[in-house]
Amino acid sequence: MSEILEITAALSRLLKADRVLLVCHKNPDGDTIGSAAALYHALRGLGKTAAVLCADPIPARYAYMELRLYTGQFAPGYTVAVDVAGIQLFGDAVAEYTREIDLCIDHHPSNPGYARGLLLDGEAAATAEIVYELLTAAGTEITPLIADCLYTGISTDTGCFKFSNTTARTHEIAAKLIRAGAHTVLLNEVLFESKSRGRLAIERIALESLEYHFEGRCAMIFLTKEQVAQAGAETVDIEGITSLPRNIEGVEVGITVRQQPAGSYKVSVRTTPRVDAAAICAHLGGGGHRQAAGCELLGSLDNAKTALLTEVEKALCRE
Amino acid sequence: MSEILEITAALSRLLKADRVLLVCHKNPDGDTIGSAAALYHALRGLGKTAAVLCADPIPARYAYMELRLYTGQFAPGYTVAVDVAGIQLFGDAVAEYTREIDLCIDHHPSNPGYARGLLLDGEAAATAEIVYELLTAAGTEITPLIADCLYTGISTDTGCFKFSNTTARTHEIAAKLIRAGAHTVLLNEVLFESKSRGRLAIERIALESLEYHFEGRCAMIFLTKEQVAQAGAETVDIEGITSLPRNIEGVEVGITVRQQPAGSYKVSVRTTPRVDAAAICAHLGGGGHRQAAGCELLGSLDNAKTALLTEVEKALCRE
Repeated sequence: MSEILEITAALSRLLKADRVLLVCHKNPDGDTIGSAAALYHALRGLGKTAAVLCADPIPARYAYMELRLYTGQFAPGYTVAVDVAGIQLFGDAVAEYTREIDLCIDHHPSNPGYARGLLLDGEAAATAEIVYELLTAAGTEITPLIADCLYTGISTDTGCFKFSNTTARTHEIAAKLIRAGAHTVLLNEVLFESKSRGRLAIERIALESLEYHFEGRCAMIFLTKEQVAQAGAETVDIEGITSLPRNIEGVEVGITVRQQPAGSYKVSVRTTPRVDAAAICAHLGGGGHRQAAGCELLGSLDNAKTALLTEVEKALCRE
Repeated sequence: MSEILEITAALSRLLKADRVLLVCHKNPDGDTIGSAAALYHALRGLGKTAAVLCADPIPARYAYMELRLYTGQFAPGYTVAVDVAGIQLFGDAVAEYTREIDLCIDHHPSNPGYARGLLLDGEAAATAEIVYELLTAAGTEITPLIADCLYTGISTDTGCFKFSNTTARTHEIAAKLIRAGAHTVLLNEVLFESKSRGRLAIERIALESLEYHFEGRCAMIFLTKEQVAQAGAETVDIEGITSLPRNIEGVEVGITVRQQPAGSYKVSVRTTPRVDAAAICAHLGGGGHRQAAGCELLGSLDNAKTALLTEVEKALCRE
């Protein structure tokens, strides 16, 4: 188990460190990249050597963070995991560097404590909030570039201040970052306004297949493997679609049925707080959380649909 | 022309007033309703008689604001226009009450000054920001209900802190409202996650008609009058769609062509900062702002399209 650190203790260790390796989680998102990039620029500002390591490529949209990737240019003297909730999230490609982590900075309450020292704030909407507190405690200047990195982490993890993890503190930090020169107009444009052509193609297919059941309390969309292939959509485009049916007015159960390359059906169930998504999926061999669960079904699409609707009806009656 | 008022002068007039009629603009949005509702509850808390007047019905989604509509229950002693940028926006149905407006509270820089006194802050992202400053200056308690009303105004006018009008002050006020008890988790769900079935039907039609031109630098969607009628969509559903083509990755000019009941084509042009939407529309008899403009075209859809694409090409070359 990790030693639990407060901000000041974590800061004093970081200030003593050099040749710092900042490690992101695989399939990197705005928070792990933004937090690592902010730390990278702050450490560099203190005259330290630092670089960022990630098992997967950093998406091109985050190029403005100007981070320097680790390519073996120094022997790491101190390794920091940023926003990595568990060791399985590092990815095999970076295994040789993640056996011993000196410090983990994270906001996932489930973090098991795999690092020597753990700076955890489960109330923080994003790890970038914790990094902001850390840099402020250090008296580090929040440059416009650092502000951009931190704003990216906070805004992406909160769906631009829309998700339920957004707190008053989140908005207060956003205000400080804007005053520090964050280019929020450009960032919001890049991060939230822009949709890929693949994503729109998937949305079109989803809307064309949209069905309502039980007087509009359940909405269902279907994606065949051929449609997904034709749309030229990336995994991230397809994963985002699962919130679509649930976000329709009056819908309590939103279901996305996606045919897999081998022919089986991957089912995502999203519900309002009163309906138990995990229960619906548990009866079909799957599971998950109360409002977000999944299962995999074999056989024909009609059979899959009938099985799903039977469980949905039971769940709606239990309500 | 109006007398230009500072917060304290506007406040002193409001505190002297009674039987206050708060007037929203027609086709009311979250800001005009939220600002009026916050003032209504604050004035009631001060023991005053007040009510809210609007030419159009208040959408059901805003029922949580618990505002009291004006139905002639008192003779107005003081009339306040809230978020109404010009007299033409009151609507004919309320004309007998809007001939003389005592005070106008607004954030539209274009406000011509039709009221006796004008409290205007063109830098405010929403009129609700100005009402927050007003209530704070008055020392009025921001109750959770008032916080909900103001949060609604601010979040809807900024697209949940995403649009370019969002400032550090916007986030600071949001933080204060959350600390005052605003139910932001529920509000964000109602205001931003939920889409009407009519809106989705319109999105489907839009995506089915989506065309790319000039190597993806221009995207165009078409809505016929029959499609709009079949979709069962409300005006608000259709107006929101105009941002869709512009928000596609790589698109610099997004165009929405909507057939009107009489057969003409209403065109909305949205552009990135580098392309002049107003110039495109000016050549077609329309006008507007640099990034958002419009025009109306007669004749066949093919002719309208050709005329539009000719102007788009010129604008893209001028860039």
